[in-house]
Amino acid sequence: MTSPSTPTSSAVDRPVRIALIGSGRIGQVHALGVHRSEGAALQVVADPFIAGAESLVARFGGRATADALAAITADDVDAVVVASPTSTHVDLIAACLDAGKPVLCEKPIDLDIARVDGLRERAAQASVPVALGFNRRFDPHFAELHRRVQAGEIGPLEQLTITSRDPAPAPEDYIRASGGIFRDMTIHDFDTARWFVPDVVAVTAVGLRQFSDVTARHDDYDGAVVTLVGAGGQSVSITNSRHCAAGYDQRLEATGPLGTLTVGNATDTLVRSSTGASGDSSAPFQTFFLERYSQAYSAELEAFLSAVRGGPMTSPGFEDGRAALVLADAAGASAREGRTVRVDLSA
Amino acid sequence: MTSPSTPTSSAVDRPVRIALIGSGRIGQVHALGVHRSEGAALQVVADPFIAGAESLVARFGGRATADALAAITADDVDAVVVASPTSTHVDLIAACLDAGKPVLCEKPIDLDIARVDGLRERAAQASVPVALGFNRRFDPHFAELHRRVQAGEIGPLEQLTITSRDPAPAPEDYIRASGGIFRDMTIHDFDTARWFVPDVVAVTAVGLRQFSDVTARHDDYDGAVVTLVGAGGQSVSITNSRHCAAGYDQRLEATGPLGTLTVGNATDTLVRSSTGASGDSSAPFQTFFLERYSQAYSAELEAFLSAVRGGPMTSPGFEDGRAALVLADAAGASAREGRTVRVDLSA
Amino acid sequence: MTSPSTPTSSAVDRPVRIALIGSGRIGQVHALGVHRSEGAALQVVADPFIAGAESLVARFGGRATADALAAITADDVDAVVVASPTSTHVDLIAACLDAGKPVLCEKPIDLDIARVDGLRERAAQASVPVALGFNRRFDPHFAELHRRVQAGEIGPLEQLTITSRDPAPAPEDYIRASGGIFRDMTIHDFDTARWFVPDVVAVTAVGLRQFSDVTARHDDYDGAVVTLVGAGGQSVSITNSRHCAAGYDQRLEATGPLGTLTVGNATDTLVRSSTGASGDSSAPFQTFFLERYSQAYSAELEAFLSAVRGGPMTSPGFEDGRAALVLADAAGASAREGRTVRVDLSA
Amino acid sequence: MTSPSTPTSSAVDRPVRIALIGSGRIGQVHALGVHRSEGAALQVVADPFIAGAESLVARFGGRATADALAAITADDVDAVVVASPTSTHVDLIAACLDAGKPVLCEKPIDLDIARVDGLRERAAQASVPVALGFNRRFDPHFAELHRRVQAGEIGPLEQLTITSRDPAPAPEDYIRASGGIFRDMTIHDFDTARWFVPDVVAVTAVGLRQFSDVTARHDDYDGAVVTLVGAGGQSVSITNSRHCAAGYDQRLEATGPLGTLTVGNATDTLVRSSTGASGDSSAPFQTFFLERYSQAYSAELEAFLSAVRGGPMTSPGFEDGRAALVLADAAGASAREGRTVRVDLSA
Repeated sequence: MTSPSTPTSSAVDRPVRIALIGSGRIGQVHALGVHRSEGAALQVVADPFIAGAESLVARFGGRATADALAAITADDVDAVVVASPTSTHVDLIAACLDAGKPVLCEKPIDLDIARVDGLRERAAQASVPVALGFNRRFDPHFAELHRRVQAGEIGPLEQLTITSRDPAPAPEDYIRASGGIFRDMTIHDFDTARWFVPDVVAVTAVGLRQFSDVTARHDDYDGAVVTLVGAGGQSVSITNSRHCAAGYDQRLEATGPLGTLTVGNATDTLVRSSTGASGDSSAPFQTFFLERYSQAYSAELEAFLSAVRGGPMTSPGFEDGRAALVLADAAGASAREGRTVRVDLSA
Repeated sequence: MTSPSTPTSSAVDRPVRIALIGSGRIGQVHALGVHRSEGAALQVVADPFIAGAESLVARFGGRATADALAAITADDVDAVVVASPTSTHVDLIAACLDAGKPVLCEKPIDLDIARVDGLRERAAQASVPVALGFNRRFDPHFAELHRRVQAGEIGPLEQLTITSRDPAPAPEDYIRASGGIFRDMTIHDFDTARWFVPDVVAVTAVGLRQFSDVTARHDDYDGAVVTLVGAGGQSVSITNSRHCAAGYDQRLEATGPLGTLTVGNATDTLVRSSTGASGDSSAPFQTFFLERYSQAYSAELEAFLSAVRGGPMTSPGFEDGRAALVLADAAGASAREGRTVRVDLSA
Repeated sequence: MTSPSTPTSSAVDRPVRIALIGSGRIGQVHALGVHRSEGAALQVVADPFIAGAESLVARFGGRATADALAAITADDVDAVVVASPTSTHVDLIAACLDAGKPVLCEKPIDLDIARVDGLRERAAQASVPVALGFNRRFDPHFAELHRRVQAGEIGPLEQLTITSRDPAPAPEDYIRASGGIFRDMTIHDFDTARWFVPDVVAVTAVGLRQFSDVTARHDDYDGAVVTLVGAGGQSVSITNSRHCAAGYDQRLEATGPLGTLTVGNATDTLVRSSTGASGDSSAPFQTFFLERYSQAYSAELEAFLSAVRGGPMTSPGFEDGRAALVLADAAGASAREGRTVRVDLSA
Repeated sequence: MTSPSTPTSSAVDRPVRIALIGSGRIGQVHALGVHRSEGAALQVVADPFIAGAESLVARFGGRATADALAAITADDVDAVVVASPTSTHVDLIAACLDAGKPVLCEKPIDLDIARVDGLRERAAQASVPVALGFNRRFDPHFAELHRRVQAGEIGPLEQLTITSRDPAPAPEDYIRASGGIFRDMTIHDFDTARWFVPDVVAVTAVGLRQFSDVTARHDDYDGAVVTLVGAGGQSVSITNSRHCAAGYDQRLEATGPLGTLTVGNATDTLVRSSTGASGDSSAPFQTFFLERYSQAYSAELEAFLSAVRGGPMTSPGFEDGRAALVLADAAGASAREGRTVRVDLSA
């Protein structure tokens, strides 16, 4: 499925030296990814929770610091991976731009479109790659589906269907700070939608309150159904839920006049069983995003490293991060007000 | 898959004698169904195009007439199957009610809700079964999924997803008279939705114009995405298109807290192939409704016959036919006006 | 899946009048089949257990008799279906040949090859169709696979794999009289093998004693693995078991240089589920042969009726029945003696 | 699917230093595996074709040498991976035993059972791990199936079915030196069989000559069907072919009284398509063993490293390598002589 990377000889000569900001769950994913990459080295890990940084450094090398700015500006750092809390993203991206350091920042840029827009102009003029961590674009299965749509296999895309259900609701603390389902969960689907249909012009969203007292208590939804329409008349249907019995439900389906391409759920094993209860039964879906998107995280990092080394920028960028947030806000308004909200992502 | 019906002995003693109104494509399906049933006999076929009626009579017995009313009122007719053009349905149902004859009428009752409402009171007070031909409720696969949802296998239903694509657009003459995609095509999906979620309270529809000059010329859509919300907070997502490369795309998916149940597309054969082009490949979907729903038409007829013989009325009835039309009209308004339309089906 | 038969007009003029010999489980299947066929009528049912014959006649018409020979020779009988115990088959086929009546006889012809050979010459010279009830050739799925192999889709057949497992062992009384697994159960697979590879030249069989005291007590096997080789070098692998947890396991796979065609197990429903226990789960296989091969029995009858009416003989015939028994006997010898047994089916 | 290895702290302190013998296709796989492992380092690569060794060293570190014995005996080498031609395996394993170095040797030990038996006694008394490279035992899917059989999910194993087809015949030079299909190709399946049924007692093999002039010219087969029987009465069916249109056909199926477990073919992508030609179509199978078993090679190495560090020996060992060759020779005799060959693997 994945072939060993074949870096240019110069890259082999000197790996890209990475400063990693944040040593939490996603930070650990990126640290392992840097370790496994033939073209990168972990130089600094920054986290005010210094024990977290030190633990990663012990496993994968580099030095630990509590000072993110020092890490970003260090002379021996070539590029930055931001995996810290959302509220720090805008300032850290700004610091990277100041330091002229390429940056791969986890999504979302911020929960507040005003703060995002405050950085928009500078990001647009940046001379270094600013990549956003929309990992699903790098899932090999979704990417293969995308490639085949782009190659014309189904003709012009007409209808895209995205199913995205989490295995179980996040804890209340997480929900409280999440910015709501559209900015926290659906935002991935908005980016997936724009990967296929960049020019979304209309958002129609229905928020659902089906099972969770926690999300209801925070005036949030535990499910959603969203319909987007593109400038070319394409439809995108998104179905979300905060729970799913069989695991992490992540499906994608693209239809055009010549056919339909689908990606179903991934399981840990090809083993299937037939018993008195079922003639054909698979394992449950992979548990959650760390399992389902482990290959995507690697590919996301490699794409960023390639851009750092001067290759083409194939990662989603700042504008993609902003557009997803605009769609999330539009979906929130649509759900509240019971009307289709028109958007102009280029404005 | 289906076991031979085991009618009560009295039914065997005397089959239900059927008057069939209409000898077109659907009329022929019902004529064959009556022939094959152990508990029914074809007594009269009425069609102003008398050659059509005569052809069916030659194959399956009974007599032919051009006069539908005479057929309905004939002394040797126990029950009526209406398979004539939509515009005749209201009057023919009324005639059956006048004659005290049970009637199974093809959908829709009418394209005009005012005409439907004009008959509503009388239908509600009818002493004989008035069944509507929403065939999908009788598809053995959809019915099995419905049974398992009702049995609680997935817990309370949260999200229902209906995918329904025709293989190719109907001819322009058909489109012109169809009443629009919501009243002609989505109406089946509205009834399927109400089978699971009877109390729909909100309709949000997006109409699509993606490929067909013909539907656009008649101010109609060639695709649609509709979101319904039930009184219990359930969502129903409907995706329609007037074309589909692989055939008649008919899928159903129901999700609740304990799991998801799906019915995928049916193929004519279990044969699958692996070749240099594909490791696992099936036949295309069954071509269209006559193939896909052949078992459903039989089961629909048997359910009606059972009610005629005094069994419980398990078929969708007049109110179901009316509700589907109300939802279709609401979807039309929603798509035109870009807003969620609230409905009260009990009003 | 199946289209209504389109008999020639003469056939419609007068249905083929059938004498059915035997009113047991298979006899009932054939009686229902005759009833449903547009081109046949049940004229006589013969069974020394007269109540069985009378019960069928009450449902489907005709007259009952205890005298099989009288039924066969009756002037108002056009053709005979033999569904009586195996030990009666040779004499009943002979009686049909004497009477010049076409006959469809359930498999096997007999358990004793000497008795079969005693009738061989006369059967070869018969002027009427003698059809053997190897129902699997008429399963629409296996038939479609066969058609595609014949059409060259996979190139010349190289390897055929037949999996055939019963849901549970037959009762001891059945086992005692069955003639052993090769003549009772594998015989179907031998015929399937010869449908694809008529000229089998070598038989290598391994008999298994894995779970059943009953079969062991009767010096029989409860499973078997058989390898056949055809004159063209093709291999056929047969796997049998007398039990299977998921139901009646009936699979077929054909491989050639251009690909593989498979028929997997049939289920009663397209409904699949995903739950905490499985991401994708189907119903168990169809229970047993009456369910799995219900369509095959109809098609088998229609093929016979077509030959009776003068159409081409497409059913397996006497020589096919004999060849399957020769292979069964060779498999028995191979399993007992631990060697490959060469056969000459034309001898 | 795989989680990062969590070596003991001592292992982290000092990676296992590996001498790799052979820099061909499989040598390269092992070199990359050592590089990616957290617990191993590539110390020496030995190959008389010194440019091959140097190329691996340039990518992954260590030193290159033409002298295998020097590499094995080097003080800074902890363990040896043998990926050189088959004819060298016996001597290299012996050298490792002399040097007290753990060794992971590619299969087969040798094509000549006499040479294998010459080393048998010493291997049995070795104080270091001697692991054989039967990679399929480490495939995560086959391993999961094996684990579930061992856990009793299907009850006692009754029938095992192994399908193993190469995508295309090897070149004539390879065929000439291969030792024949049973010792070259089926040997993997014999080991898989023994993983489930260690005590095989009978071998019945049929060799096929279906399409390849090359294999026929070398008195070899291009396909085979083999039936093994275990001491407990279990059957194992193996189907081999030297070609397969859809890629590398690698399937496994285990049946017991409680059910069947299967592993189907792996594809590079979860993307499936529906078009006018097929309602559901996957990608072809993964091309060949490097793709299909890439995860297996990693897991095989980790299991060996774990044993080197003092953990339990979970890899197949010398006796497994010998047993597979005994079965291959028995299959050759069975195919030539048309009889079942009984074997005693403990003799």
